This record gives sequence, structure tokens and C-alpha cells, in this order.
Amino acid sequence: MTCDLLIENAAVLTVDAAWNLYEPGFLAVKGDSIAAVGPMAVRRAWEARTVVDAAGKLLMPGFVNAHTHVAMAAFRGACEDVDDRLRKYIFPLEARLVDRDLVYRASRFCLVEMAASGTTCFGDMYYFEDEVARAAREAGLRCVLGETVVDFPAPDCPEPYGGLGYGLDFISDWAGDALVKPCLAPHAPYTVDAEHLRRVRRESEARGLPVLMHIAETAPENERFTASHGSVLRYLDAEGALYPGLVGAHMIYLDPSDIALAAARGLSVAHCPGSNAKSGRPICPAADLADAGVPVGLGTDGPLSGNGMDLQGIVGLFPKLQKMRRNDRGAVPARQAVRAATRGGAEALGLGKVTGSLEPGKKADLVLVDADSFGLQPVYDWYAAVVYSMRPSDVAATYVGGRLVWDRTGMKGFDQAEAMADVRGVADRCRGVIAELTGGAS
Amino acid sequence: MTCDLLIENAAVLTVDAAWNLYEPGFLAVKGDSIAAVGPMAVRRAWEARTVVDAAGKLLMPGFVNAHTHVAMAAFRGACEDVDDRLRKYIFPLEARLVDRDLVYRASRFCLVEMAASGTTCFGDMYYFEDEVARAAREAGLRCVLGETVVDFPAPDCPEPYGGLGYGLDFISDWAGDALVKPCLAPHAPYTVDAEHLRRVRRESEARGLPVLMHIAETAPENERFTASHGSVLRYLDAEGALYPGLVGAHMIYLDPSDIALAAARGLSVAHCPGSNAKSGRPICPAADLADAGVPVGLGTDGPLSGNGMDLQGIVGLFPKLQKMRRNDRGAVPARQAVRAATRGGAEALGLGKVTGSLEPGKKADLVLVDADSFGLQPVYDWYAAVVYSMRPSDVAATYVGGRLVWDRTGMKGFDQAEAMADVRGVADRCRGVIAELTGGAS
Repeated sequence: MTCDLLIENAAVLTVDAAWNLYEPGFLAVKGDSIAAVGPMAVRRAWEARTVVDAAGKLLMPGFVNAHTHVAMAAFRGACEDVDDRLRKYIFPLEARLVDRDLVYRASRFCLVEMAASGTTCFGDMYYFEDEVARAAREAGLRCVLGETVVDFPAPDCPEPYGGLGYGLDFISDWAGDALVKPCLAPHAPYTVDAEHLRRVRRESEARGLPVLMHIAETAPENERFTASHGSVLRYLDAEGALYPGLVGAHMIYLDPSDIALAAARGLSVAHCPGSNAKSGRPICPAADLADAGVPVGLGTDGPLSGNGMDLQGIVGLFPKLQKMRRNDRGAVPARQAVRAATRGGAEALGLGKVTGSLEPGKKADLVLVDADSFGLQPVYDWYAAVVYSMRPSDVAATYVGGRLVWDRTGMKGFDQAEAMADVRGVADRCRGVIAELTGGAS
Repeated sequence: MTCDLLIENAAVLTVDAAWNLYEPGFLAVKGDSIAAVGPMAVRRAWEARTVVDAAGKLLMPGFVNAHTHVAMAAFRGACEDVDDRLRKYIFPLEARLVDRDLVYRASRFCLVEMAASGTTCFGDMYYFEDEVARAAREAGLRCVLGETVVDFPAPDCPEPYGGLGYGLDFISDWAGDALVKPCLAPHAPYTVDAEHLRRVRRESEARGLPVLMHIAETAPENERFTASHGSVLRYLDAEGALYPGLVGAHMIYLDPSDIALAAARGLSVAHCPGSNAKSGRPICPAADLADAGVPVGLGTDGPLSGNGMDLQGIVGLFPKLQKMRRNDRGAVPARQAVRAATRGGAEALGLGKVTGSLEPGKKADLVLVDADSFGLQPVYDWYAAVVYSMRPSDVAATYVGGRLVWDRTGMKGFDQAEAMADVRGVADRCRGVIAELTGGAS
């Protein structure tokens, strides 16, 4: 049989339902999809135009970053370690600085870090998502992009809830794109009223699209809806705003009946342990959600909240915090963490049939990992190596839909030096406003 | 004035008492010590044999890893995510596999990862510490090495408490070394009886040496001594085994009176948030200890417990867990985390006058960081960049005592490819025993 690309001699971590691991193994790509994967013993049935000898390397599914705001790379590291950061600093920063140009440049810059650390797919919520889409297309990354719907004037829409119209235009403009899935992203239960939450649901269900939303993330939100309805989730459910396709980011403040409700209503979760911890928040019951059958992916959150945009910084933290939460070293064994960082994220974003594992028929979204680094060796267990030892610089090459998007020579889709220069320019425009807001502290 | 090495045009993070930050700044090294540090405006007073133009780079104190077991790199990633790992797997692994050769080879291997991620100084507890010392001397890293004293036969001493004699020989053999400070390391309150704890204290005080010990790390230990004495620390104090110079690793199970006791007795703490979380343990009250005046450093713990041996994997987790513990985003602001990872560790190990900050008179233990990585930019605040965004691969060069020990071409003290080959050989010797102990699960 003939294929376009064949990667051979790697340790192949499929993250399929049977946890198949071929060592050494191969993977064959035809067009943008995986044609075959298996042990080297059956590789000889294949001929390929391009053969990559990956001896000594690990081949695994690309990381899926289930929740981020890539354009916020413009602000990374500003206004850290302060109380009520969202309303005191982030919203004002955005109101004064975010425009179409910033979103495009900062997104493109941010995608370099993501591709270079093996992220092949991401879920994003922000303004001007058409600019994020443009950057993602150039980079060659798969994504689910949610245009923000919110009850105050936003950088891309002067009128409250203007994101709905902006988002519907974005959705029709990008319909059918091979990599970009456009959708709507109501900001949060405390910034979008019930009527608009229902309208987002109707518009999205009519188009078969996922919906991205911050849910049960903040303490004031939790207090408000616990007082009125028992919990944030019960409020949303009472308003007809919990439904399959809704991807809840954070989902921190949940009691056992909320977890059952999330499972019953077909919700997915984008768990962001790094940004939640950095905000001093409780630990999302992510393992309990997964046990209840809720698809759980992992997210970095935006670069202002999560800073590092590599999933390596998250995949190890996820089991650690769950072990702490359960006071059980055995909670979330390493392979479950690998699953959440790949297949779990794909499932959470509604792409479970498209990506997230190395199986024939899925898109060839792959990462080659150099396994000979001093931080990774020795390897007794590949899952433990990925979760607890792997660092972003161990990634050797990243493929999306069978196409090489990054290797150690840089991005294939655009000039990454230009992206770096761009973001320095953006940062120079931001410095004055940041200094003004923080009284010069930053 | 003349010096041997002058690094100029860097952003210089001194981590001195006044938090001086020179941007751009310079640092002059004479012999093994810092002769001057300051803004570029006063650099012209200096001439140097070697001038390094560090434009676009960050110059900061080397990271201090306050608690580890470098030789356990031989076992990294084995037997993960299992209950009672110490007694079921680690002690048997060590009894069957640890010998002089393994300690030397695995240590040398591990020091590459540490030097390459900017660690200039570390505190270590293990067996055959003279072999760790040999590896550290070759690598050129500064260290405090504690020979293990324990109530069962150890790999380097067949009789219980044999480490005492072994350790005293080690101490006299390595006395006065420029980089290696040898000392004793009673394993833990539950594996060393009170009489031997006092004997370790006497021998160490007579020689002016620090003592390294795991303290209040495990739940059974906490239960046992809480039942008998109210807490682990109160037990140790009642037995005359809490004293200045004692460095407690972990120190998880502390109540407010233990914190006051630790401060009153002059203890130091090596806080290991990564390994503690991975064990599903509560959060050490590290910020409370620091507030009480206890020197707090950060450690990775050994590669079997903490896996990645870079401090970048720890310096961000430290504030995150303290913010969670206090439910306060403002807890442990970034610069305090940088301080703990450098100067705090030096103080904890009794080297506060020797290293940990960039000040004239201290040893020139330095890291140059490439600030132009896609994960680090943009930079609005250097402390936030180091704590939340920096990754090991951002390190460009590591100096100890003014000597370059690592740069992107590799280790200067030995052939790192040989160290990699060595550890692969060691791992091949270990695989059978690990598979036997874990029933083939690893």
C-alpha cells in the first residue's frame, strides 16, 4: 500500500481505547489522515513518498489546549499577583488596547510557542476571532474559535452583546474550513443574561456548533448563583442554558449534584489547573467529572492567566492537583493525564472523531518527541515520561493534518522572526497603558 | 579596575535586599567572586580579560535546589502513581540496585540537566555521597551533600546507622573543598532514633556543619508523633533534635505553634511543592514559615519523586500552591518566588553569605537567560517572566564561582554524551528488578 508520509522506528503512543503502544512502531499518513499505525513488524506492507526515521523518538498525538485566549500574549506577565485582576486590570487593558491588529499579531506570535511545544489543536475565546482564525490558518493549527458575547461594549463591538452578530458573521465566513471551527463564546454566567445564553444556544444548535463559556470560575459568581439557585450550574440549567456541546472552562465550584448534572446534560469541561491555582482558587473536581463520564480536556488559559502556553506545563500539574484533592497518590495515573491532554481535549471540543489519538481515519495531528534529553531519560514508562518529565524543548516536530507545521528550524507557515518582532512592537504600544493602570508597578 | 570576566548589557536581577534591577546592567567577576554589579552607566570603570555581551539576555543568580537525591535519576519514572511507594518500591529498589557505580553515573547524568537549567547549587541526601561529590566536582556545581544515616542496612553500609561512620569519613575527606560541603543526613524522624539524632547534632555542631533531614513529610510519621508529642516538631524538640543548621525537607505537617517553634530553634526549610503534590500531600505552609522568619528554599526532591530536575518546574508551582492555600492571588508575589529559588535556598543550606544573589563579595554563581524565546516574551516584569514563563531551555549559560560550567554546546567539566550513555546502561541494569517489583506494570 502507498501513503504520503511514513514515520517509522518510533515508540508510538496511540492513546487509543486499548492504550496500544508500539515500540518500535510506525504510522502511515495518506492525505491529511492516519492510514495505519502499528508495530514495525507490519510496516513493510507500506510504501511512502516521504519516510521519517524516528528511531529514539516518541510519536504521540498532538496536545490539545482546550481553553485559551491566544491574543492575550500581548499582555503576558503584566499586572501579576493582584486582587480582582479581571475588573481592575484586564477589562480596562482590553478596552484601551485590543484592536484587530493586536489580535492578529499577538495570536500569530502565541501560536509559535504552541506549535513548538506540540500543540496541534486549541480552543480559543476572544474578540476579533476572525483574526485568530487568520493566524491559525497561517500557522496550520486546528482550532475551535469562539467569538465573545458579553453584556458590555467589547473591543470589536461597541454595543452590548454585539459579539452575537459579529460571531454569526464569523461563523458564516469560516464555515467548512478544514482547520478552523468558528463558534460563539458567551463570556460567563455573570456577564451574559439568560435570554442571550438561550439565544446563543439556539443559534449554535441550529448550526451544529459547540459553545465555549467560562463557568463556575470565580468566587463572586459562585456566591451569587448559589444564593439564587443553589449553584452556578443549577442556575444555568434552570434557564435552559446547559446542553450538549457546551464546553465549560474552569468549572471549579461544583458539588456532587452539579457533577451529575453536568454529565446528564452532556457538558464538556476545559480544566485549567495552572491558571486556577495561580488565581488562588480551589481545585476543579476534574477527576470526579471524568469518572462521571464528562469529557475533560486540559487548557493553559490565556497567556495573562496561565503564562506558559505549552501543555507540558499543565499535563503534570493536572494529576498533582487531583492527587492533592483526593489525598491519593494513585489518583489520575499518568496515562489518564496523557489522555486528558490529547484525546480528552479533542472530545471536550467536539472533535473526538477528528483528532486526539493515533488511529486510522483520524486526522494526522502528531508530535515527534526527542527522547534523548537529559530531563527525560531514563524512560521506564512513556506515560510517566510525558506527564512528569517532558519539557517543551523536547518536541522535535509537530504535524497537523499530516502537514509539518513546526520543526527545530521554525514555523513552516510564516516567518517566526517577524512574529517575534511584531509582538515586541505590540508590547511597546502596551507599556504606557500598563504602567498607568498599575501605577508603574509593572 | 581590572577583572577576569565582565558580563554587560544584560537585564541584571540582583535579588539583593533592595531588589536592585539594572536594565541594562553589568557584572564583574574577579577570581571566583563578584567584584561589582550595577547599571551600564558605571561599567566603564572596568576592564576585563573576557567580556560577554549579553544584550537581550537576563542575568540572574543561579538557581539553588535545596533538596534532592540526584543519584535517583537512575530510577526516574519507575513505579509511579502507586500507594506506599517508599516502602513497597523505593527501599527495595535501592537495596537491590544502588551501588557506588550507579550513584556516580546517575549523579553525573543528573547534574547535566541541573546545570543546563541554571542550577548552580544543590542540597543532596543519599548513599555513597562521596561519589556524588566526585560527580559535582567534575560538573563544577556547588553543593551541600548529606550522607544518609538510617536505622536499617543501607546500600553503602550493611549495619544500621553505618552512615554515621561513612559520613564522618566523607566529611573529613572533603573538608575545605571549594564547591562541596559534606555533612550528615539523618533520613527522617521515623527512621532514625532520638539517640542517633542527638549524635548527628553533636558531630555536626562540633564541625560547624548543616544537617539535612526529611521532616514532617508523611502522614504516618505525622500521626505517630502527633499521638506521642503533639507534632513531629515537638517530638524532635523534646528530644533535643531541633537546632540551628538543621534543614528540614518537606515540613508539611505543621501547625502554627510548630511554625513558631521552627523559627525559635533556627531551622531552615527545603520546600518541595512538586514532589509533595505528586504524593497527594497537603501543602507545606511555606509562606507562613517565611513570614515567621524561617529561611525557605525550594527543592525538586529526587528524580523519582519530582522527575524534572529543573527549578523552573518548581519556582512557578511554589506561589501557585501558596495562593491556593491562602485563597489569595496576592500570596507570594513573583519576586518572592524568585528569591526563594535563589537566595532563599542558599540561606536554607547555610550558604547565604556565599551565594544566592548578585552582590559584590559573593561567589559568581550566575545564569544567563535568553530572553527572546516565544514562551517568555513579551516581558513587562522580569520576576513574573522567571516565575511563570521561563522554561529550562531558556537558559543560555551557567557559571559557578565565575567558571562557565554549561552553555548550549554542553557541559564543560565532562563529556555529557558519555554521561547519557552511562545512564542508559544503568537503566538497562535496573529494568529487570523494576519489572519484578511492579509485576511488569512499569
